[in-house]
Amino acid sequence: MGSSNLNVSYSKLGQNLVPSAIASVMTIALENPNILSLAAGFTDSHSLPVLDVSDAVKSLSERPGSAEYLQYGTNQGRSALRSRVAGRLMTQDGISIDEEDRKRVFITNGSQQALFLATQVLCDTGDIVFVESPSYFVYLEMLKGEGVEARSLPTRGDGSIDLPALEKELVGIRNAGEIGRVKAVYLVSYFSNPTGESRSEEEKIELAGVLRRIGEPIAVIEDAAYRDLYFTHEHPARSIVSLNAFEGISCLYLTTLTKPFATGLKIGSGFCTDAKWLERILWLKGHHDFGSSNFTQAILEEVLSDDCFDNHLRIIRRIYQEKMNALHAALCDGGLTEVGWSWKEPSGGLYLWLKAPEGLDTRMGSEFWKACCQNGVLYVPGDLCYGGVEVFDNVRLSFGVLEQEKLKEAASRFTETAISFSRIKS
Amino acid sequence: MGSSNLNVSYSKLGQNLVPSAIASVMTIALENPNILSLAAGFTDSHSLPVLDVSDAVKSLSERPGSAEYLQYGTNQGRSALRSRVAGRLMTQDGISIDEEDRKRVFITNGSQQALFLATQVLCDTGDIVFVESPSYFVYLEMLKGEGVEARSLPTRGDGSIDLPALEKELVGIRNAGEIGRVKAVYLVSYFSNPTGESRSEEEKIELAGVLRRIGEPIAVIEDAAYRDLYFTHEHPARSIVSLNAFEGISCLYLTTLTKPFATGLKIGSGFCTDAKWLERILWLKGHHDFGSSNFTQAILEEVLSDDCFDNHLRIIRRIYQEKMNALHAALCDGGLTEVGWSWKEPSGGLYLWLKAPEGLDTRMGSEFWKACCQNGVLYVPGDLCYGGVEVFDNVRLSFGVLEQEKLKEAASRFTETAISFSRIKS
Repeated sequence: MGSSNLNVSYSKLGQNLVPSAIASVMTIALENPNILSLAAGFTDSHSLPVLDVSDAVKSLSERPGSAEYLQYGTNQGRSALRSRVAGRLMTQDGISIDEEDRKRVFITNGSQQALFLATQVLCDTGDIVFVESPSYFVYLEMLKGEGVEARSLPTRGDGSIDLPALEKELVGIRNAGEIGRVKAVYLVSYFSNPTGESRSEEEKIELAGVLRRIGEPIAVIEDAAYRDLYFTHEHPARSIVSLNAFEGISCLYLTTLTKPFATGLKIGSGFCTDAKWLERILWLKGHHDFGSSNFTQAILEEVLSDDCFDNHLRIIRRIYQEKMNALHAALCDGGLTEVGWSWKEPSGGLYLWLKAPEGLDTRMGSEFWKACCQNGVLYVPGDLCYGGVEVFDNVRLSFGVLEQEKLKEAASRFTETAISFSRIKS
Repeated sequence: MGSSNLNVSYSKLGQNLVPSAIASVMTIALENPNILSLAAGFTDSHSLPVLDVSDAVKSLSERPGSAEYLQYGTNQGRSALRSRVAGRLMTQDGISIDEEDRKRVFITNGSQQALFLATQVLCDTGDIVFVESPSYFVYLEMLKGEGVEARSLPTRGDGSIDLPALEKELVGIRNAGEIGRVKAVYLVSYFSNPTGESRSEEEKIELAGVLRRIGEPIAVIEDAAYRDLYFTHEHPARSIVSLNAFEGISCLYLTTLTKPFATGLKIGSGFCTDAKWLERILWLKGHHDFGSSNFTQAILEEVLSDDCFDNHLRIIRRIYQEKMNALHAALCDGGLTEVGWSWKEPSGGLYLWLKAPEGLDTRMGSEFWKACCQNGVLYVPGDLCYGGVEVFDNVRLSFGVLEQEKLKEAASRFTETAISFSRIKS
């Protein structure tokens, strides 16, 4: 079997693509079995719902009648599952749903696919999507691949969006005749990847106000992948699709059914308030795969039909809280704050977002990065999480996958490295 | 919850998209429960491997150690599954495999996703992909959405590709300075959708010769979705990735593990001989979903590890042969050939490809189409299967999903309609 000589020539998109930064981090982890990774956003392995899944499959297999769950499904996704998704969202937001709301839901291969579809039907090369500062780095990589500019939302010191500054910026873009390039605002608004922070309802309503006054067709995409992963209390803000302030603004709300259950099942969903946008998203999905796995959708339908899914959520919320506490305590005990590092304890999600001492370069390939690798611990360099601004002194640590003992060991390696750097500096 | 007023503005791709023709056919079927559909390419429902799947899940759930199959997998797909895919291909082609071959395999959400990824990294708006005449209509729709021209390969009366004519056409395109627009040749070369025909090895080798003489970077995509679905004998031609003639030409071979097993599991694969093209396909997949369902991949790995998958294949081959025979016989017995319709009996696949009497318009919305709908039978209009040429008098009938009795009833409705049209004409 031969290798290729006549290289093919790529599309603009094909030429634009670059490898994912996290892929190279994962390669380092694979090649060094002794390394502990605080980088990958994997979920807890020990609590994976082995019995829930096999019981659901058994129950499907024993159901009289046709084995339709093993047949092709529909492009938009299973109707009962879409109802469940709409129902859960409306329960969380405390509003009632009707048949129309169910039609707005579509099922995807993880919420990532929904994000891809929604973005590709909106954005051409040269368009602009506003993102939080910092934001979800896999989305930033996708935008880069598509040739779309990720522009950071103006942000206050406390992490809130500076909405008057955004309005000014949008007016400036309009005055420059470029407002047509601005296609969307993307928010990870519940226990964010990477910061663990959530947006308040007031902040969302103010954003809607800005967009309404600007009066241009700018969509809002709200990524709620971590909404179910609170530790003790739900974040009280309702979603953009339930707030009256967003009436007339095209909104897409994304969630995943499998990150808080079993990521291997890979089922996400979107809820789109703009029927025409949804239509095009679905036409593009028809080209992708004309429907996500009907089987894994049927399993989710099963586990959502009784308390199984919510019971599992209760278990893993406690686990992630304990893991966060373990990582947090180990970093503190090791003396990381004493050498100038700071962070907030999140109340949900899978990440600690660390601010390094002013000026410490934590980028991939930096001296600090190399020292951490050498010391057997990996992290996500914070600069990957910024669109259009250069911030080099943040670090994302994930407490999702490692067991508590390993989290402590990883924290100790990280802290040692940080302390040795503070000695070099001083 | 409100409807949207400020419409968003779409990308060029977003504007280009149109609904799938088959979606509207399926809507007709859903709205008319008495209608019998010979249109959808669904697979046999009664033989779906309910026990095989639940046994595989049980076996996974009882395996000691971590439940890694419920965790995120990798972007390229499970390593053991990729080995199985490479191994099966090499067994079919009668050649040996090595570690390098395994690296060329990637796993996708059905082979459709592989087709999408491969095409999107190659083609910009205005580019050209050569397709068979006729070809797989879902791919033609995808190309249309991407603004890519599907150009029909010159074809002889017997369905074979007129390769001297293709060479002449490519020389003409080159002389016109447009050869850079030609990105790929797409073949459905085993028991094709829609014709049921297969390409000979000689034909493939001649195609490679033409491409070699042209000497431009034109890729070849071979879609082998129906290769396993022969009735009694494998089609003897080796795949393009095993033929020495394709050395130096970038080749992608697509197959599905779930169309011949349980379509609800939605696992396809690609085998790409061009490492750089594969790399970009995977980078784009990273943006789509960073990996297909690890769980359904693990199930396929299980059923491929013993005789389970191949035993199932033996069962469904017989079923499809019987169904084809039933549909064929019912059409003949009803007198369809006597009123000027003709077709060949295929030796595999899921379709009969009918040629209507010269000049009979079978397009969607035609008088014949309306009469069939009214008479309670649906088909895929053949014109949807042509790129760049207008042929209105073919019909694709699927014998995959309906039971034999219903196939006979559908055939009788179709034949009655055809006979009534021949009376009108005469």
